[in-house]
Amino acid sequence: MSKKPIRLGMVGGGNDAFIGAVHRVAARVDGEYELIAGALSSTPEKARASGAALGLAADRTYDDFKSMAIREAKLKEGIEAVAIVTPNHMHAPVAREFLRRGIHVICDKPLTSTLADARKLVKVAEASDALFVLTHNYTGYPMIRQARDMIASATLGDIRVVQAEYPQDWLTEAEEVNANKQAEWRTDPARSGAGGCIGDIGTHAFNLLSFVTGLDAESLSADLQSFVSGRQLDDNAHVMLRFKGGARGMLWSSQVAPGNENALKIRVYGSKGGLEWAQEDPNYLWYTPFGEPKRLLTRGGTGATPSANRMTRTPGGHPEGYLEAFANIYTEAAAAIRSYVAGEPIPSGVQFPTIHDGLRGVQFIDACVKSSERNAAWVVV
Amino acid sequence: MSKKPIRLGMVGGGNDAFIGAVHRVAARVDGEYELIAGALSSTPEKARASGAALGLAADRTYDDFKSMAIREAKLKEGIEAVAIVTPNHMHAPVAREFLRRGIHVICDKPLTSTLADARKLVKVAEASDALFVLTHNYTGYPMIRQARDMIASATLGDIRVVQAEYPQDWLTEAEEVNANKQAEWRTDPARSGAGGCIGDIGTHAFNLLSFVTGLDAESLSADLQSFVSGRQLDDNAHVMLRFKGGARGMLWSSQVAPGNENALKIRVYGSKGGLEWAQEDPNYLWYTPFGEPKRLLTRGGTGATPSANRMTRTPGGHPEGYLEAFANIYTEAAAAIRSYVAGEPIPSGVQFPTIHDGLRGVQFIDACVKSSERNAAWVVV
Amino acid sequence: MSKKPIRLGMVGGGNDAFIGAVHRVAARVDGEYELIAGALSSTPEKARASGAALGLAADRTYDDFKSMAIREAKLKEGIEAVAIVTPNHMHAPVAREFLRRGIHVICDKPLTSTLADARKLVKVAEASDALFVLTHNYTGYPMIRQARDMIASATLGDIRVVQAEYPQDWLTEAEEVNANKQAEWRTDPARSGAGGCIGDIGTHAFNLLSFVTGLDAESLSADLQSFVSGRQLDDNAHVMLRFKGGARGMLWSSQVAPGNENALKIRVYGSKGGLEWAQEDPNYLWYTPFGEPKRLLTRGGTGATPSANRMTRTPGGHPEGYLEAFANIYTEAAAAIRSYVAGEPIPSGVQFPTIHDGLRGVQFIDACVKSSERNAAWVVV
Amino acid sequence: MSKKPIRLGMVGGGNDAFIGAVHRVAARVDGEYELIAGALSSTPEKARASGAALGLAADRTYDDFKSMAIREAKLKEGIEAVAIVTPNHMHAPVAREFLRRGIHVICDKPLTSTLADARKLVKVAEASDALFVLTHNYTGYPMIRQARDMIASATLGDIRVVQAEYPQDWLTEAEEVNANKQAEWRTDPARSGAGGCIGDIGTHAFNLLSFVTGLDAESLSADLQSFVSGRQLDDNAHVMLRFKGGARGMLWSSQVAPGNENALKIRVYGSKGGLEWAQEDPNYLWYTPFGEPKRLLTRGGTGATPSANRMTRTPGGHPEGYLEAFANIYTEAAAAIRSYVAGEPIPSGVQFPTIHDGLRGVQFIDACVKSSERNAAWVVV
Repeated sequence: MSKKPIRLGMVGGGNDAFIGAVHRVAARVDGEYELIAGALSSTPEKARASGAALGLAADRTYDDFKSMAIREAKLKEGIEAVAIVTPNHMHAPVAREFLRRGIHVICDKPLTSTLADARKLVKVAEASDALFVLTHNYTGYPMIRQARDMIASATLGDIRVVQAEYPQDWLTEAEEVNANKQAEWRTDPARSGAGGCIGDIGTHAFNLLSFVTGLDAESLSADLQSFVSGRQLDDNAHVMLRFKGGARGMLWSSQVAPGNENALKIRVYGSKGGLEWAQEDPNYLWYTPFGEPKRLLTRGGTGATPSANRMTRTPGGHPEGYLEAFANIYTEAAAAIRSYVAGEPIPSGVQFPTIHDGLRGVQFIDACVKSSERNAAWVVV
Repeated sequence: MSKKPIRLGMVGGGNDAFIGAVHRVAARVDGEYELIAGALSSTPEKARASGAALGLAADRTYDDFKSMAIREAKLKEGIEAVAIVTPNHMHAPVAREFLRRGIHVICDKPLTSTLADARKLVKVAEASDALFVLTHNYTGYPMIRQARDMIASATLGDIRVVQAEYPQDWLTEAEEVNANKQAEWRTDPARSGAGGCIGDIGTHAFNLLSFVTGLDAESLSADLQSFVSGRQLDDNAHVMLRFKGGARGMLWSSQVAPGNENALKIRVYGSKGGLEWAQEDPNYLWYTPFGEPKRLLTRGGTGATPSANRMTRTPGGHPEGYLEAFANIYTEAAAAIRSYVAGEPIPSGVQFPTIHDGLRGVQFIDACVKSSERNAAWVVV
Repeated sequence: MSKKPIRLGMVGGGNDAFIGAVHRVAARVDGEYELIAGALSSTPEKARASGAALGLAADRTYDDFKSMAIREAKLKEGIEAVAIVTPNHMHAPVAREFLRRGIHVICDKPLTSTLADARKLVKVAEASDALFVLTHNYTGYPMIRQARDMIASATLGDIRVVQAEYPQDWLTEAEEVNANKQAEWRTDPARSGAGGCIGDIGTHAFNLLSFVTGLDAESLSADLQSFVSGRQLDDNAHVMLRFKGGARGMLWSSQVAPGNENALKIRVYGSKGGLEWAQEDPNYLWYTPFGEPKRLLTRGGTGATPSANRMTRTPGGHPEGYLEAFANIYTEAAAAIRSYVAGEPIPSGVQFPTIHDGLRGVQFIDACVKSSERNAAWVVV
Repeated sequence: MSKKPIRLGMVGGGNDAFIGAVHRVAARVDGEYELIAGALSSTPEKARASGAALGLAADRTYDDFKSMAIREAKLKEGIEAVAIVTPNHMHAPVAREFLRRGIHVICDKPLTSTLADARKLVKVAEASDALFVLTHNYTGYPMIRQARDMIASATLGDIRVVQAEYPQDWLTEAEEVNANKQAEWRTDPARSGAGGCIGDIGTHAFNLLSFVTGLDAESLSADLQSFVSGRQLDDNAHVMLRFKGGARGMLWSSQVAPGNENALKIRVYGSKGGLEWAQEDPNYLWYTPFGEPKRLLTRGGTGATPSANRMTRTPGGHPEGYLEAFANIYTEAAAAIRSYVAGEPIPSGVQFPTIHDGLRGVQFIDACVKSSERNAAWVVV
């Protein structure tokens, strides 16, 4: 923090948005960023009003993202990084403009709304002189870092079974016809892509299980449903998974499961033990060495590993939450950006979801949609 | 209890057995039965030793079940009912002998080890002058009764999604080669049938979800695995379910999931609310009316319904468990037997799993095995 | 169980009673007793009706306990033991009649309604040729047995702090004026003694902490309250405890704490570790070795000790509850009675609350009442 | 946030400190403050190194707090507020220097190390042209705000019983002799005052119960212990409380309770219902209307009230934690400071612990110590 904050811009995230505000807090928590520019809405008036509300200078508040990319790239003290928090279909066009101009991109998930867009964007990113960070924020939780390390070091033996689930309930009724902007775009194929629930949150669960286990999904069988009358996209998804090496998994995501707020959960079982973690109680990690009593590992506690402690600000019993995990992704990104700028390798231990994770996520969505269309036939991921 | 206890015999359940002792306690709890005869093992010496250990009269301790059926049927004070607690492949031959002689059968699950046996046994039972009760004991839990009634009365609206799981961990290693008798027969196709984990416990989960929701499974897609080297039957099963009327479900059962003792759990979601219940904490039922806070309904508590209270012996906060739930099945069976003997209809509210539930369970196992052999193709249940 | 059941009688426990039915199930679970006689109510008509409902022979159904004691003692196959389940003030007079005649007594708690009665009864018991067992049933829970052994073997180091609590909510309103018989006698000094909540359930908490820790209470400071208008006895009690050797404790019992059904809980902390147990979730025992992660020990599980396993009927994950714990007291009593009759020492490991624990409980109640009357001055227990 | 950040200084909080870093994050989360000056240690070299590490300008890094107060008060763009995060005994002298110069003070708890200091500081604050905010941070949790409002609006009826507890385990062994700076000063009467555990965390529990219930403590009876050999201050405290109006309470705080990280918990029971909240799982509030099932109210969820939602950044199921609650105090302080500067009343709804709460906390500590010295006699708070 003795370093100067990284100059940050934002595209999307105007007054009505949910995730834009989250990104702003996440960028602020560790003092690593300073938000100085924005194209906060596709509606110019709203973009300006939102910029003013955030205290941005008028000349750093843009009516559209392209003007912003062009001008900021030319300014001496222009932004060094941009956060993209638009609906999914805009991720690719926005990211392209900034990546081309050497401005680092921190982009919300899923990577894009189509697989074609994702593939093109990977090429743009690879050709770019800038980093691409995808905010699969759940990988920022300390106990998730610990779970990953425990599995990587074979604490659980050979991994056999993975159970991932991500149920919510906010779309139990047809919220999209009630002028709920979040519901509108998330159930609209034009803005979200071909996946509804599976794209919005199933992809988080898939990313998380891949991150935690290090397993590579080979194929899947998916049965997607749309329970609410008139809804254009899936609101519940059942998926069976086969991984390279023989492990198997199940993944359930739903937005019509009353009593579930944001109940992402992952359970991993191997030949020597099991792990269980729930996002709503993220400071706990249950670990059972086979044949011994279950242990409750706590963030900041006596059972926490260095990989968890790196991501930890407060001692055990002083709970951290969603914003801190999100901030961890931003802070990892800052470390990577600073190293990149300095021409140094990214420091050992620094981890963040990349554009390749993003491509993998879009491939997952695509495979789920295809499989479901083919009566849950197995589809290669 | 002013009534005379029903005279009960037992086949199987000798000294090493697990479930025989459970049946005996279950029969005793409410004073409805008196155990007076047994063919407790297929090994005559063990049968006699076990009978003596239980205090059975020597002349009511039989070396084989057929002699027992023949003689008890002739005795003036012969047994009125028999509990069958053998390995699966013996359920059908044993049940047949008693049913034919008008002796009521209380049989452990699954009904039989093959679908052909199950179908034949249904005919025998239908032709018999005796009742057939299957101990899908988890349906005896008071809060399960309550869940069923809440769903039947449309408290949850239209049911959309069912999540059932039944993980254990006791077969994480090759216990069957360690002279563990339970592991031996449960992993032996000759004694268990074609399903391992799916037959031993998956069928409990399937029965429970059917009982609770009243939904009829139409087809399923199953991916069965056998993770432990040398094991002949599945030890982990992933199943997707489609129900008549459009509801969908997932079912996971495993015996290789470290940290899970007997973690049967069911979650049901409808258009108006959700319910969650876990067997290891059976006195609680979580209920969320959509749009309102989650409520913790407790057995014997202020939110308990008459259907739960019928099955309840102690007030809220005085926990009941597995044996009480098992005893409830026995006590329901006693009520049915007494009515049957009296030529009266089974009293309203009395519920127990029948031979048709048993057939359904064997059809489920069979469909899972077939589906898995066909790369998880959809198979009609 | 090859042994003949012990012939049991019961005083109290007629149709309206709560605890009588519990004793009857507890006596039945392990097949160790046969209930054959009773004086089930102080109202003769009700005594007879209750006896008939339980299937007792008419000539073994008595109008009063004294006639029962006299006649049963003379019968060749008269009762060997009697369960006393009356309101507190009748424990002493009833117990006396049976003890004097060599009939073993299994008596509900608290021992008596006055300290004078308790002292006299101890003398009667000591002079008697019969055993006295007090049903402080919570000591029958397997994980409580394990906690006791872990502490006795210094797993927690020197014990420093004990936190015991027993809140309920059923007397939040003036239930005693609503013809609730349970509430009536439990809030009536003539029948309950000078302690209300502290006598009814506080004494359970005190007994449990003494049993688990092995600590001997030296003095206490108590602040008793009666929150419901018109109530004659305390309905909430705050107690600070000092133990011989320097450990300290707190004890809270309440019957006016909404949201608590029967929430007995005990936590013990020593120089090397801590233990936590809650009666409503009795199959779990939390153990923290200082400096290591918390462990969840489960009844029947990998962390269970022989002392817990002795008291266990079903494997881990198949929950046992209140009735099984109560049955454990009855079964321990049966082992003691059989040994006593055989002139043999009580087998090692057999444990049940004795009349001396009962005296200690009444001393505790007496000390709490006295301390509270003296503005919470320290009173020797 | 369109407003300019408040210019903030800090006294204490150098490299080794725990709570200084917490204050800095808390100040940053909502973008309401900019840290620009500091006297971060009483050791000048460490003060300078710590300032540099935080990126403070060299001329705003002071060797001592007095120089800082004098110079900053004269600067045109000097600090507007100062955060005091020193050991307790320095709170008063530091606060005095800034308050006298019209610089707002945000001070850690407890207010001072002696009651005399606290009384004097109240006068200084009252005479000052600046605000005084005490960071009893636990009052910043959203569900605590909700609990307070529910009680204030009589949802629980008349409050009868309060159970507060705050156990930790980090001083189970003599950590203060192991060069642990936190342990050193917190067990040193010269720096902490006469209360050890009771001053460090008991005072948090007392503040929280006062805040939540609105009850005013009248008198208390305390039994303080020091279990670790050689320790100068209490490490475990048992307290009974009497409130004006007749409610009663118990308070337990401990730093020698293995298995407890930071387990602050509060339970409140009234004539119409009960509430329970635990700091380690702060997004949940359990509410039981008497006679109805318990409800799980969640932060951001369907049962959250406006007073909770004011303090909430993320939707239900996206957990917030300790830092967000701490940030809420800072953000409330910012609103108050801005209003104060503008000559306007503090906006309705804005709440933060004041110097009077601080005085009350020191009175509580003082009363506990006095009561314990007098064998737990009742002492007026």
